[in-house]
Amino acid sequence: MTALARIGITMGDPSGVGPEIIVKALQEMSPEHRSATAVIGNLDFLKRADKLVGANLSYTDQFDNARGGVVPVAHVPTKDMARITDGQITEAGGEAAYQYVAKAVELALAGKIAVIVTAPLNKGAMHLAGHHFDGHTELLAHLTGAKSSFMLLASDKLSAVHVSTHVSLRGATERATTERVLATIRAGNEHFKALGFANPRIAVAGLNPHCGEGGIFGNEEIERINRGVDLAQQEGINVKGPISGDTVFYRALKGEFDLVVAQFHDQGHIPTKLIAFDETVNVSLGLPIRRTSVDHGTAFDIAWQGKASHVNMRAAVAYARMMADRMPARAAA
Amino acid sequence: MTALARIGITMGDPSGVGPEIIVKALQEMSPEHRSATAVIGNLDFLKRADKLVGANLSYTDQFDNARGGVVPVAHVPTKDMARITDGQITEAGGEAAYQYVAKAVELALAGKIAVIVTAPLNKGAMHLAGHHFDGHTELLAHLTGAKSSFMLLASDKLSAVHVSTHVSLRGATERATTERVLATIRAGNEHFKALGFANPRIAVAGLNPHCGEGGIFGNEEIERINRGVDLAQQEGINVKGPISGDTVFYRALKGEFDLVVAQFHDQGHIPTKLIAFDETVNVSLGLPIRRTSVDHGTAFDIAWQGKASHVNMRAAVAYARMMADRMPARAAA
Repeated sequence: MTALARIGITMGDPSGVGPEIIVKALQEMSPEHRSATAVIGNLDFLKRADKLVGANLSYTDQFDNARGGVVPVAHVPTKDMARITDGQITEAGGEAAYQYVAKAVELALAGKIAVIVTAPLNKGAMHLAGHHFDGHTELLAHLTGAKSSFMLLASDKLSAVHVSTHVSLRGATERATTERVLATIRAGNEHFKALGFANPRIAVAGLNPHCGEGGIFGNEEIERINRGVDLAQQEGINVKGPISGDTVFYRALKGEFDLVVAQFHDQGHIPTKLIAFDETVNVSLGLPIRRTSVDHGTAFDIAWQGKASHVNMRAAVAYARMMADRMPARAAA
Repeated sequence: MTALARIGITMGDPSGVGPEIIVKALQEMSPEHRSATAVIGNLDFLKRADKLVGANLSYTDQFDNARGGVVPVAHVPTKDMARITDGQITEAGGEAAYQYVAKAVELALAGKIAVIVTAPLNKGAMHLAGHHFDGHTELLAHLTGAKSSFMLLASDKLSAVHVSTHVSLRGATERATTERVLATIRAGNEHFKALGFANPRIAVAGLNPHCGEGGIFGNEEIERINRGVDLAQQEGINVKGPISGDTVFYRALKGEFDLVVAQFHDQGHIPTKLIAFDETVNVSLGLPIRRTSVDHGTAFDIAWQGKASHVNMRAAVAYARMMADRMPARAAA
């Protein structure tokens, strides 16, 4: 067994770009890193993607004994494999993607992999297969019994953790409660501390334009958000805010803050993806396992043509590797 | 009289940074441009700012006859001038700022200036003086009798026009009606056409995350926004959308669109200010006059110290000059 902690990449929906971007990412690694990066999925699809890409790597399903550049694979037998069609939404593809994630969670909870990296799955396909989750994060929360989780979008340039994500904008105004704001600040603070920041500099964005301008454009800051920030400060967290959304990300980008707490999906996604579209990694905070993900979908329109970019997968793996290196094993992420 | 169309810069609240950033911007201009750039405000404050900055420019209140680098000034006698205090909110400062804007509108409607550029005023001071407007845009709409206006944030890199601005986030979800979306697209299209774009490429952002993902995260796209885009397309406007907020600005930045229609304040302000903080100019569309503005406030904390940056004022004047050069006189902006 290698001295490096083991990362586990789930293959995602085999009909999508997952297999090929995984192989491309593996191909670039040093032999030592490659043997410490497991794939959780179907070995047949993986070998087919290897051929497509022309990588010519070696794979072993002897998960614990990979070395010398051989890629360890946690092979998951796939039901109705013949029904999985390149670039199509299928029940079988959705079921396969689900099984890979379930297996990865099992391995992570058993301490066999330090961080999960997820390749994209298709929500529609997963629903067809009878697994009714809004996405990976909800699925992971379910599989691990976590009550809540927080989406961090991270890059070297700009990072944002979200008070809410996959909810309507109207619903997001209701989710921005004192409790949830406080919990999001805490989750972000813990994560950055675990990464080695002594006292992470956190800024909380306002929900309304100009933070509501003293209640003229909305009361959520006065009634709920201010209090969440206050409570976090009382716990000793180095947090400021709320600060108007239209300046807080600029200030963070210029180096004033390590992390911005965004009140809703677009508020955090727009700036992070604008600044580092390909390098922004999705990290799940608040789960008993650690997980990063690419921040794109299955891209069925270009799947299995060998042309999908693996730049975002590379970034997701690099972030996972950093987490594995810096955080003590099994510590809360 | 110069051959160039005349721009008119309002001085804003004399307690703020307006006078000094105006002088700094004038100082950089060629003599021909300087004599085609009028200041609407108080000559005494302007001369004091000139001294502060060390510009040593010449000013004349013979508005129509400025030439050779002399700056034309529409001098507005200022009530209770002694009560206006550097860096303070005062009723007299609010009243003065109001009067300068009123004078500028009068000159613009009379065809004496082609485009108004506004230096910042302070809402609180204006309210103290009994003028209850949320800002310049609302004041200008009132003074010109316009029913609605649209805020465009523009820079060479990225431009966004807003369906709504100074309203709570919750209220913004209600403002995103078919009619208002259509009117915003039209206003943006007309402006870019008037600037010389043959067929402006416009993208409309969704209101909800992922445009609501087929109604799972909100129905505004299905019930209202899609229809607004359809109607605009039927009028021959080159518009696409709605497109998810977290990708549309990136695509525009990469050159796919000339303009993004943002559904609410932060959605348009966050990306434009992040990409071009100092160069982003506020342009009012839908008014019978033309107006650009700096996109910052009175900055009372640093006013009258000579250190305020005029970079944004320079950009606002340059945009106004471009409008004056490219748009036929008095055409709808």
